[in-house]
Amino acid sequence: MTLEESMQAFHPSPESLPPRDVNYRLRFPHSSPGFKHPLNPLAFLLRSAQIYPNKLALAHADVAQPVFYSYAVWAQRVQNLAYALIQAGIKPGDRVAVISPNSPMIADAHQGILAARAVICPINTRLTRPEVDYILEHSGSKLILVDHELAHLVQNANIPVIVSKDTGRAGDPYEEFLSTGRRFSGEKGWSGLDWEEDEDAAIALCYTSGTSGRPKGVITSLRGAYLAAFGNAYDAGLTRDSTYLWILPMFHACGWTFPWAITLASATQIILRTVSYPQIWYHLTKSGVTHYCGAPTVQIGLANAPEAKRLDKSILAVVAGSAPTAHLLSSLERLNIRPLHVYGLTYTYGPFTRCYMQPHWDSLPLDERARYVARQGMTIATSDDARVVYCVKEDEEGAPETELVDVPKDGKTLGEVVVRGNSVMKEYFRDPEATKKAFRAGYFASGDLAVMHPDGYIAIQDRGKDIIISGGENASSLAIEQELASHPDVLEVSVVARPHPKWGERPMAFVILHPQRAQQWVGRHAEFADALKKHARQRLPGFACPEWVEVVAELPKTSTGKIQKAVLRQTAAKL
Amino acid sequence: MTLEESMQAFHPSPESLPPRDVNYRLRFPHSSPGFKHPLNPLAFLLRSAQIYPNKLALAHADVAQPVFYSYAVWAQRVQNLAYALIQAGIKPGDRVAVISPNSPMIADAHQGILAARAVICPINTRLTRPEVDYILEHSGSKLILVDHELAHLVQNANIPVIVSKDTGRAGDPYEEFLSTGRRFSGEKGWSGLDWEEDEDAAIALCYTSGTSGRPKGVITSLRGAYLAAFGNAYDAGLTRDSTYLWILPMFHACGWTFPWAITLASATQIILRTVSYPQIWYHLTKSGVTHYCGAPTVQIGLANAPEAKRLDKSILAVVAGSAPTAHLLSSLERLNIRPLHVYGLTYTYGPFTRCYMQPHWDSLPLDERARYVARQGMTIATSDDARVVYCVKEDEEGAPETELVDVPKDGKTLGEVVVRGNSVMKEYFRDPEATKKAFRAGYFASGDLAVMHPDGYIAIQDRGKDIIISGGENASSLAIEQELASHPDVLEVSVVARPHPKWGERPMAFVILHPQRAQQWVGRHAEFADALKKHARQRLPGFACPEWVEVVAELPKTSTGKIQKAVLRQTAAKL
Repeated sequence: MTLEESMQAFHPSPESLPPRDVNYRLRFPHSSPGFKHPLNPLAFLLRSAQIYPNKLALAHADVAQPVFYSYAVWAQRVQNLAYALIQAGIKPGDRVAVISPNSPMIADAHQGILAARAVICPINTRLTRPEVDYILEHSGSKLILVDHELAHLVQNANIPVIVSKDTGRAGDPYEEFLSTGRRFSGEKGWSGLDWEEDEDAAIALCYTSGTSGRPKGVITSLRGAYLAAFGNAYDAGLTRDSTYLWILPMFHACGWTFPWAITLASATQIILRTVSYPQIWYHLTKSGVTHYCGAPTVQIGLANAPEAKRLDKSILAVVAGSAPTAHLLSSLERLNIRPLHVYGLTYTYGPFTRCYMQPHWDSLPLDERARYVARQGMTIATSDDARVVYCVKEDEEGAPETELVDVPKDGKTLGEVVVRGNSVMKEYFRDPEATKKAFRAGYFASGDLAVMHPDGYIAIQDRGKDIIISGGENASSLAIEQELASHPDVLEVSVVARPHPKWGERPMAFVILHPQRAQQWVGRHAEFADALKKHARQRLPGFACPEWVEVVAELPKTSTGKIQKAVLRQTAAKL
Repeated sequence: MTLEESMQAFHPSPESLPPRDVNYRLRFPHSSPGFKHPLNPLAFLLRSAQIYPNKLALAHADVAQPVFYSYAVWAQRVQNLAYALIQAGIKPGDRVAVISPNSPMIADAHQGILAARAVICPINTRLTRPEVDYILEHSGSKLILVDHELAHLVQNANIPVIVSKDTGRAGDPYEEFLSTGRRFSGEKGWSGLDWEEDEDAAIALCYTSGTSGRPKGVITSLRGAYLAAFGNAYDAGLTRDSTYLWILPMFHACGWTFPWAITLASATQIILRTVSYPQIWYHLTKSGVTHYCGAPTVQIGLANAPEAKRLDKSILAVVAGSAPTAHLLSSLERLNIRPLHVYGLTYTYGPFTRCYMQPHWDSLPLDERARYVARQGMTIATSDDARVVYCVKEDEEGAPETELVDVPKDGKTLGEVVVRGNSVMKEYFRDPEATKKAFRAGYFASGDLAVMHPDGYIAIQDRGKDIIISGGENASSLAIEQELASHPDVLEVSVVARPHPKWGERPMAFVILHPQRAQQWVGRHAEFADALKKHARQRLPGFACPEWVEVVAELPKTSTGKIQKAVLRQTAAKL
């Protein structure tokens, strides 16, 4: 049975069914100028429901009680959520926390909280309870939507908590919540809700661990999300005929704006609670998936899963987080998966630049092509401006410098990536001081160190703190990793600085062996270390060669799949 | 030789060559917030030149002296034009008139005038000299860019006139103008120009004959053009691999924003001075054309040209102006041309709604499908809102009513199409009174009469009360009447549209003869008709000249003395 057929056979709850003569227009003041409509990505869902009411919007198939919503039904559920929030006392600008793996509820939340003119605060599901407590407190959230598996994280919350059992069936507290919303609406429908008049109003509050200890709250805007989502949909070629598979967690920078890019395109989305390779491969091969997003580490797992096989139709994979290695690139291409390498941050709504492919790269040998593709590239159409500038030092008073000087386009000189534009965060929540410091001369300073190549492509060398100062030389941990990953026995590798009595710091590599090669090195990790160091010496300058190589079973990762280099650095320092 | 190869062999003028280390960033104040960049479609060209400097941007092949510009070269020429205008005294907000068939100059003008922060005022090339005079006067244009074939229209202008001979070679006054710009720039490049800080600033001033006698100046904004162009590029599926053929005149509502949609996509554009079917078919079959826009009358000619043959690869044709007939639809489909039916006005930057195809239409018989496709449909993603409302009547004081009531979705009840959103005109130039009247309760009243179908599709029934769409041009019946009434033998005259097999519609005049002159024409009405047509040809552009003249004893009128044009249209249609 196809997903479409499953939708035909599925019976949504009575409260999820829209009235016969539905109107998708929110209330809007007559006085506003007719030529200027405040940008708001909620418009995308409403428009798709209007044009394609019976098209499959959302499929959640891999659970005990699957659900399949058409655009008309899903839009009604979103409207119910908005009314339920308003009835619960949520006012415009209030924060609503969401703690959930990918699920229909968090998909609803990206639309319905918006429709109530409130601010979604998606919380990383892998945080500890004290961390969650801190975010709930700092964000001043007024209500929590939580998945039943994570309800323990908010056990003692002193604000209303709505638990979803992820069933979509009567008896589920989340379903009851939606039903109260429908009843509260008095069937006024969309026209009983107000369109937000200020396009600069906050859409989301996402917490990032940032560079300091405490999570920082990143405020993004309606306007920014509208434009970034448009840019992402355009760049990824999402259309009405696309099917997007949710591998990336939606809580991660609001799923890089894809919740809105998908609805702009009137595309279908398939929701997965967990990163399960058998499920992923089922949908890649059976459900007509055309697009997904993910960090390289997920792509590695996907490419090496036993279910992996060449796809009949090419699929586009948006890769971000770190650059895909030559090995990963070729693995994906063999499977007929086209990787689209983008670069971005929570501060930039996800993707900000893309490594645009040049036609002549196609004919290059894989290794060389991979080196080109690994670069972070140039801005996507809605990103406006990215530069690499000389690292800006603060003056005595701590005031940021006002002049930014571009590094030469030599592919060598290290500078900092700075960005400006409509898809740059608006502010740190309740922290004007940090906000002021984050922007320099009208640009947001990313903290990422990069070079600018002669062809205008940005290439990140490291996060500022990840750079290794080896014998006075700047060694890019990313560049070292790229070379080490070309060793056939390496599945995944991470390189960090380790203190060294003579050189100050030297690179240390943590390596996961390829499953098919691990056996041959059992009990001989020292020999493998020598082999890898030799491999490195043929490819890297002396100061960049790893002094130490440690074979590990796994690497410490954040919930979004990023390797936690700070943890590795601590490990290395203690060795 | 392919167009790409022609570009390789082509040598642009030295002044068209960008410096080695070109920077595509305009000056921007540090003080502006880093998270909010004023929208401006100039960004698209700059970004394409940065990413794909050597890609073919613009091909003008079908002239004695063809030119082929890469994105880097074209961007440099655009920059030269901006500096040349500034040197000529053009200040931000000044209007620059352009009178040209499709040519590299008018393509440049859509970017370069913008880069000088001035306002492009493209003038319909088929207007008479008095009409052009009026527009130049009313717009307060400070400079004119004119094609050599139309230079006679501005012979006595008292502002600077730059003539293009459309050669792209030294000795051409337009080329000299660009060269002065390059010299004036002092090689400060893009960073010597200012980015417009106000995204609501005017981008264009387009004159439309509208419904009243005098042409009306429609002001559109940078923000509107950015968004409309994005919407059009997205909806038409324009990508880096697209090649757009210019059949639609660029002066027509700024080419429906396609000058910017094409540069957003980093696509290639092919320029044609005239609608020449052999040339069009050459490019459709040999130059890899993927997209074009045009009125149905052009599509009819194209489909019936002797060169027409089925294309190997499907091409997308954006059709607007009036609905494609079943006959036209099937003709285009046989040729492997997919028509995309859109609806819009000069007031809406071109396309505002689109007849989105539903999957189940594919299996319908042609006639039935054509009836569906002929509808104007629903808003494109950036258009925000279109409604069909009960015709709003002015109250006693002449103030517009403030409540808009949607017609029922019954496919029968006639209402007026009203629109609001970012791609609705900002104002009538220097006419706050008319602007105020044009907007009702926050919506622009189109004057088009339509019904709303149960599936939410808008279907226009009558394109305005008076307007005549003759060969794709808007002819104002009032303006025609004004000229015809100047004939000494005419007592009263009314002009309405009558269907025409070739031009879509042509004006038909109903005339009551002056009592003192009637006697001399008894039995010689055909001769009078010829005399009046001759009279018209001396005063009106060809498309506005009446094709038929009927002498009548009286005109149907309402009780308040208004001529009932609907009755005349019925009469004309039956003749």
